[in-house]
Amino acid sequence: MAGSPSRAAGRRLQLPLLCLFLQGATAVLFAVFVRYNHKTDAALWHRSNHSNADNEFYFRYPSFQDVHAMVFVGFGFLMVFLQRYGFSSVGFTFLLAAFALQWSTLVQGFLHSFHGGHIHVGVESMINADFCAGAVLISFGAVLGKTGPAQLLLMALLEVVLFGINEFVLLHLLGVRDAGGSMTIHTFGAYFGLVLSRVLYRPQLEKSKHRQGSVYHSDLFAMIGTIFLWIFWPSFNAALTALGAGQHRTALNTYYSLAASTLGTFALSALVGEDGRLDMPILESKFKVQDTCGVHNLHGMPGVLGALLGVLVAGLATHEAYGDGLESVFPLIAEGQRSATSQAMHQLFGLFVTLMFASVGGGLGGLLLKLPFLDSPPDSQCYEDQVHWQVPGEHEDKAQRPLRVEEADTQA
Amino acid sequence: MAGSPSRAAGRRLQLPLLCLFLQGATAVLFAVFVRYNHKTDAALWHRSNHSNADNEFYFRYPSFQDVHAMVFVGFGFLMVFLQRYGFSSVGFTFLLAAFALQWSTLVQGFLHSFHGGHIHVGVESMINADFCAGAVLISFGAVLGKTGPAQLLLMALLEVVLFGINEFVLLHLLGVRDAGGSMTIHTFGAYFGLVLSRVLYRPQLEKSKHRQGSVYHSDLFAMIGTIFLWIFWPSFNAALTALGAGQHRTALNTYYSLAASTLGTFALSALVGEDGRLDMPILESKFKVQDTCGVHNLHGMPGVLGALLGVLVAGLATHEAYGDGLESVFPLIAEGQRSATSQAMHQLFGLFVTLMFASVGGGLGGLLLKLPFLDSPPDSQCYEDQVHWQVPGEHEDKAQRPLRVEEADTQA
Amino acid sequence: MAGSPSRAAGRRLQLPLLCLFLQGATAVLFAVFVRYNHKTDAALWHRSNHSNADNEFYFRYPSFQDVHAMVFVGFGFLMVFLQRYGFSSVGFTFLLAAFALQWSTLVQGFLHSFHGGHIHVGVESMINADFCAGAVLISFGAVLGKTGPAQLLLMALLEVVLFGINEFVLLHLLGVRDAGGSMTIHTFGAYFGLVLSRVLYRPQLEKSKHRQGSVYHSDLFAMIGTIFLWIFWPSFNAALTALGAGQHRTALNTYYSLAASTLGTFALSALVGEDGRLDMPILESKFKVQDTCGVHNLHGMPGVLGALLGVLVAGLATHEAYGDGLESVFPLIAEGQRSATSQAMHQLFGLFVTLMFASVGGGLGGLLLKLPFLDSPPDSQCYEDQVHWQVPGEHEDKAQRPLRVEEADTQA
Repeated sequence: MAGSPSRAAGRRLQLPLLCLFLQGATAVLFAVFVRYNHKTDAALWHRSNHSNADNEFYFRYPSFQDVHAMVFVGFGFLMVFLQRYGFSSVGFTFLLAAFALQWSTLVQGFLHSFHGGHIHVGVESMINADFCAGAVLISFGAVLGKTGPAQLLLMALLEVVLFGINEFVLLHLLGVRDAGGSMTIHTFGAYFGLVLSRVLYRPQLEKSKHRQGSVYHSDLFAMIGTIFLWIFWPSFNAALTALGAGQHRTALNTYYSLAASTLGTFALSALVGEDGRLDMPILESKFKVQDTCGVHNLHGMPGVLGALLGVLVAGLATHEAYGDGLESVFPLIAEGQRSATSQAMHQLFGLFVTLMFASVGGGLGGLLLKLPFLDSPPDSQCYEDQVHWQVPGEHEDKAQRPLRVEEADTQA
Repeated sequence: MAGSPSRAAGRRLQLPLLCLFLQGATAVLFAVFVRYNHKTDAALWHRSNHSNADNEFYFRYPSFQDVHAMVFVGFGFLMVFLQRYGFSSVGFTFLLAAFALQWSTLVQGFLHSFHGGHIHVGVESMINADFCAGAVLISFGAVLGKTGPAQLLLMALLEVVLFGINEFVLLHLLGVRDAGGSMTIHTFGAYFGLVLSRVLYRPQLEKSKHRQGSVYHSDLFAMIGTIFLWIFWPSFNAALTALGAGQHRTALNTYYSLAASTLGTFALSALVGEDGRLDMPILESKFKVQDTCGVHNLHGMPGVLGALLGVLVAGLATHEAYGDGLESVFPLIAEGQRSATSQAMHQLFGLFVTLMFASVGGGLGGLLLKLPFLDSPPDSQCYEDQVHWQVPGEHEDKAQRPLRVEEADTQA
Repeated sequence: MAGSPSRAAGRRLQLPLLCLFLQGATAVLFAVFVRYNHKTDAALWHRSNHSNADNEFYFRYPSFQDVHAMVFVGFGFLMVFLQRYGFSSVGFTFLLAAFALQWSTLVQGFLHSFHGGHIHVGVESMINADFCAGAVLISFGAVLGKTGPAQLLLMALLEVVLFGINEFVLLHLLGVRDAGGSMTIHTFGAYFGLVLSRVLYRPQLEKSKHRQGSVYHSDLFAMIGTIFLWIFWPSFNAALTALGAGQHRTALNTYYSLAASTLGTFALSALVGEDGRLDMPILESKFKVQDTCGVHNLHGMPGVLGALLGVLVAGLATHEAYGDGLESVFPLIAEGQRSATSQAMHQLFGLFVTLMFASVGGGLGGLLLKLPFLDSPPDSQCYEDQVHWQVPGEHEDKAQRPLRVEEADTQA
């Protein structure tokens, strides 16, 4: 099943060596460059005049934990819908996110908060790191079932760097405002993954087609993921916005927007569904198309729409609407450095830059992952846990394998 | 399976049109009437003298998120115990709650916070909206498996209005204190649903009886729901209580009360169980009786008991016990407007009013849902996902349908 | 299946009577001894000069809720991997934790916060109670599948007392600092359970060996537990540390440490796995060995390592590294009462004391649980829900039992 002996031996060492190398390098870089910031460091904090209640931890940590649950529970279980790929979906989500959050702390740190030879970290770094992990998991969705763990780690290695640079260009060089991560997270993650998936195109993939379906209980597991992403979305959007009314307003807007789009989704699903029935899980049905459409519909198109809406909102921003709050929403307009129209043009250019970075990066990533010695599963073994995992029951009665009643039939 | 062609066509359009109409109307009403409150609005907040740490968001949002998880994860998965109704339980919970929370923001807003022609919303509105959605889901539990999604939306449409009026009468007109929503949420939601279920009584429902059982893994999914409801209950009760010691005390009391009742539940279950064995899932076994008993035991009786306990506590409230805190617990007694006895009588009257609103409302709701063109599933297709959802495997090998090993037997 | 009639009758009464007795006694002790502390009591709080934002509730409650989710969702589902023991894993977790958290509030209260004849409780008590429940659940992991609920309650009765005394000796008498509960929770819980399991050793247990495996979907449920323990671990470690920078730093350190160890775990699993494949669930595979190894690897060894690291850190603590923050990390060093070396020796002695308490206590617990009238499942019925629970489908078609396709085969 695992191909020739040498290939098996190669894979045997590929993943552990890559994990150890990446983690070792990350640990060394952390030791050399990463330091507590002044709200985390015992000595610095106690020297300051702040009360404990002012520590940013209390304003952001509850939202961070919600985001953290989204990344690991939400994305992890969202992708469990494939009938034989649950271990890989949850397990590789774990692996990718655990690497991406460390690596992005370094990359984002070098680009955003490198002072005096050090990166200074706190609760904001943790949220930013989880955001970047989220973008990597969006890309993972586009290649789900068709890539091995070593390939995925290399994808994350490249993507995190480009994510950080794109974010730096948008937020720092162009002064773009990116509400909810429309551009930096959703648009970037989706198109990076889609272009990469396109480069990895396999004409013979229908050999694994029978495994692309879901089974009843795998869909229920996927619903756990869907619901966790849904309920914590307000925290995701509010986690890093301005303290006070900013966070409050962002959470509120997200809450009502999500509720409204849920009714719209049900309406659409019932309209297009066979016999007027609903398709399950209704909110993640778009995921099931493994190729372009899945991630494109869920993150790509919404990300671009969100970005275009940002262009519109920037173009209409006035002191009348925001009062002194304009400072925290569009600071460059508030300070008179830019007109609303100029801010709108910058927003639009930011979207263009994001699409460029994602496409070129995804293309490069695809070429990288095509390196022949990497652990890509064969065409006939895609969407299958057994290539990567020891699955319960595989050594015993074959019919005991999970939920494969059809085999029991055949044998009977 | 789906009845005559015209009926199928009717259902095909019924749900999407109802969703689109309700969401469209809600969106228009939001645009016209709903505005940010002064803790959410950028301009208003920045004009005030408050520090960001004083924004109500930080006192209430973590509890809101717990409540939000209870409504969507807790209620959603609690009802997954039926062996073939998991998609509907989770999916309709989503649909009902997403509509109810928007609609109740409008209804509660008109009744409680309509100033200058506008409803002003913030984190308290979100919590209140989720509470009302919770009441609707309690009622959903009473008719689970016997109603279609369009019927359920109409139920929510009516119930949210009556919920809001009942709450207004109790809290504003009668000056009743309703700890943990005993009356406004649990009692109201339970008896509304039970009376409605009674009106929908079907003598031929035993045709679907074989689907009312659970299977092993569906019970484990239901345990996810149970546990999320259990662990976040302290937040549910504390989310809207007075800041400071009030929230602190409420969470603490709920925490220990829940732990104590858990041991009591195990004792009772082991006493009455066959061979002294426990029934699973132990904390939600009462749900399994689809009719009166289920919701009655879990929300109805406890709600009434909680309300009666509130009568007792009000009657015994003294300045000695509460000190200045009496102001936040029973303000009318603290201000000398009412004696403790008078407050107790008002509490009792509030319970009576709630039971009236719930019964009459549930009756009306039942008549509404009996309208013949609505999407009620036939007697033989109750508790069955396939009426409403596309279920994985239905077009392929029949034996591949989830967990129907008995069919494999028959075929073999 | 349930043994002789008298034995069955004995079990029938054993669990309910024990539950009622323990809960009754606990309730009486709460009524007599437990009072609100000054941040929870309405009268005391309103008499103080603090603003509501200063109430400790707001600094600790979000972390408490994360810990609470770890205890009930995390531990509960972590142990669902056994193919026929899901009800027991989740259900007994519920029962044990609900009792342990009440009982430990009393025990810890008498030892730590008994003033004026009363125990004063608040959000810190809730966190401490959940921590102790966590230690009991770690011990539960060592005897999972081999003990009945009444036995487990007696184990908890004893373990909570010894947990409290050990904690008192370490924190109050020895002035030890115990970061993340390495000693008081992980080391104590693990070795108490392991010694107890050793005393309960059964030579004939291989009769139940076929039930020790997992099935595909039970492993996915176990992943839910694993992920919840993983994502909320930062809150677990930070919940009771010093406010401000202390909590901030603890959460941050835990976050990055967990991510780093995840890559290490994948590397190791791929290295030792058959064909270089990963074992699932990768982070809890150690649990599968029911005996010594399971809990030993996951809590015992890490706990001891953490404790030894604490010795090292204490020995190296200087004013230079911590500044005024040293007061909150190692107060006795900061106040000049101890040298760093002396603190290190005290830390080491604390580990020794913990191992002694755990071993002697676990031994006593094992002897207690061997009392012949207790509800120990027979050798051939271990790891089996049906001994303790009514399992869906057991009265109907045998083949309908969950996921036992192999039976369908045999019958066909």
